[in-house]
Amino acid sequence: MWQLYQFPLCPFSRKVRLMLSEKGIAYELWRENPWEMREAFMHMNPAGRTPVLHDPERAITLIDSRAICEYIEETTDRVPLIIGTASARAEIRRLVALFDENFFADVTGPLLNEKMKKRIFLKQPPESRVLRDAMRLAHEHLYYIDYLVDHRPWLAGPTMSMADLAAAAQISVADYLGGLDWNGHDQARAWYSVFKSRPSFRPLLAERMEVIQPPIHYADVNA
Amino acid sequence: MWQLYQFPLCPFSRKVRLMLSEKGIAYELWRENPWEMREAFMHMNPAGRTPVLHDPERAITLIDSRAICEYIEETTDRVPLIIGTASARAEIRRLVALFDENFFADVTGPLLNEKMKKRIFLKQPPESRVLRDAMRLAHEHLYYIDYLVDHRPWLAGPTMSMADLAAAAQISVADYLGGLDWNGHDQARAWYSVFKSRPSFRPLLAERMEVIQPPIHYADVNA
Ligand SMILES: N[C@@H](CCC(=O)N[C@@H](CS)C(=O)NCC(=O)O)C(=O)O
Ligand SMILES: N[C@@H](CCC(=O)N[C@@H](CS)C(=O)NCC(=O)O)C(=O)O
Repeated sequence: MWQLYQFPLCPFSRKVRLMLSEKGIAYELWRENPWEMREAFMHMNPAGRTPVLHDPERAITLIDSRAICEYIEETTDRVPLIIGTASARAEIRRLVALFDENFFADVTGPLLNEKMKKRIFLKQPPESRVLRDAMRLAHEHLYYIDYLVDHRPWLAGPTMSMADLAAAAQISVADYLGGLDWNGHDQARAWYSVFKSRPSFRPLLAERMEVIQPPIHYADVNA
Repeated sequence: MWQLYQFPLCPFSRKVRLMLSEKGIAYELWRENPWEMREAFMHMNPAGRTPVLHDPERAITLIDSRAICEYIEETTDRVPLIIGTASARAEIRRLVALFDENFFADVTGPLLNEKMKKRIFLKQPPESRVLRDAMRLAHEHLYYIDYLVDHRPWLAGPTMSMADLAAAAQISVADYLGGLDWNGHDQARAWYSVFKSRPSFRPLLAERMEVIQPPIHYADVNA
């Protein structure tokens, strides 16, 4: 069985979990805190990052969430998530990169730093300037989602794709950390609440990270 | 014909240029300085980043170097660069991510910031502590390349792949900016010098960026 090395608030691990669940592939969760740089983990992934998807029986080790998702897509027939013409697939991958890289750099990354890492290691309070910037940039990203779902049923086109999974993964972590203000983002909120009620999403919403609790609306599918 | 929006020292654009050349696909270079946030460019790519690959006749706009490379791979039969079993393809994509993300964050990004951006905008000298850190981390990445080519003819396996292109693209920019010390990296140097003499690579090595000149060994295929 697949073993996924991850921690609850890693957005890239969440994307892989959503992908595995949507495809109906069984996996075990293995807790890994990459910041501890555990030797056996560094040996598995020299980059020292989560997620890593490992199958001990077949001696397969997959690293990097996009490489993992492409692998899963190539090795399963069910529920295709990188679909359509070459251009449509490029649009899906553009949006995945936008959320993995820009949303993470602007919003999820700074929130994780300020609210999780500083708390766990440095026992320091978060810096309010950094939090304000992250929340301001989060608005811009939510506006872009509003715009996309004004034009298309799902982020990349007529059907659910890996782009929706990548976006929902980042957003769910930012929302857990209290970094999103949904006011004025009705379209984005409607798209996200459809996601929140998918069976693949429920386990993520039920999980809690020690030391940090999410806001009340976080796991509420009607919020 | 394809138009590639790029600037000479953008490593992600270099990866796409290598890919197009290796596949024998014609393209035009369009100079774009993303830091100028030109309105028409921001309209084309809301993320405001190079590279963008655009075909005006077919109205195709491709964004994000990995999405672009996957598109090129999917739409051409010649010179496959994401090859082999699903696991082999995952290994290629892991290494692409390692160079695009970790090498860029550790080495190319800081060098571009200190040596190019500070010079062009802020008219400030580079910070020597940042340059030292980048050069120290560059050694670690070169050791990893030494290790890989000790075990395999090319970075990801028996044949040249997108991993080699991604690595060579980052390395060529770091080398241009004087950030690499090749001493003690004979294996990496041998792998890279084979690359430097490929026809796809020659145009990159011949190009110069205004205001910054590369070290003497940079374009020397025997160095
Ligand atoms: N491109 C990677 C990014 C993975 C990543 O940044 N993971 C974070 C946790 S959310 C991590 O392990 N950070 C520790 C580090 O970079 O040292 C992916 O998509 O898998
Ligand atoms: N993941 C993107 C990264 C592109 C990127 O970071 N490009 C840089 C130039 S080397 C850029 O445009 N930076 C400007 C910005 O981020 O605003 C890709 O692979 O295309």
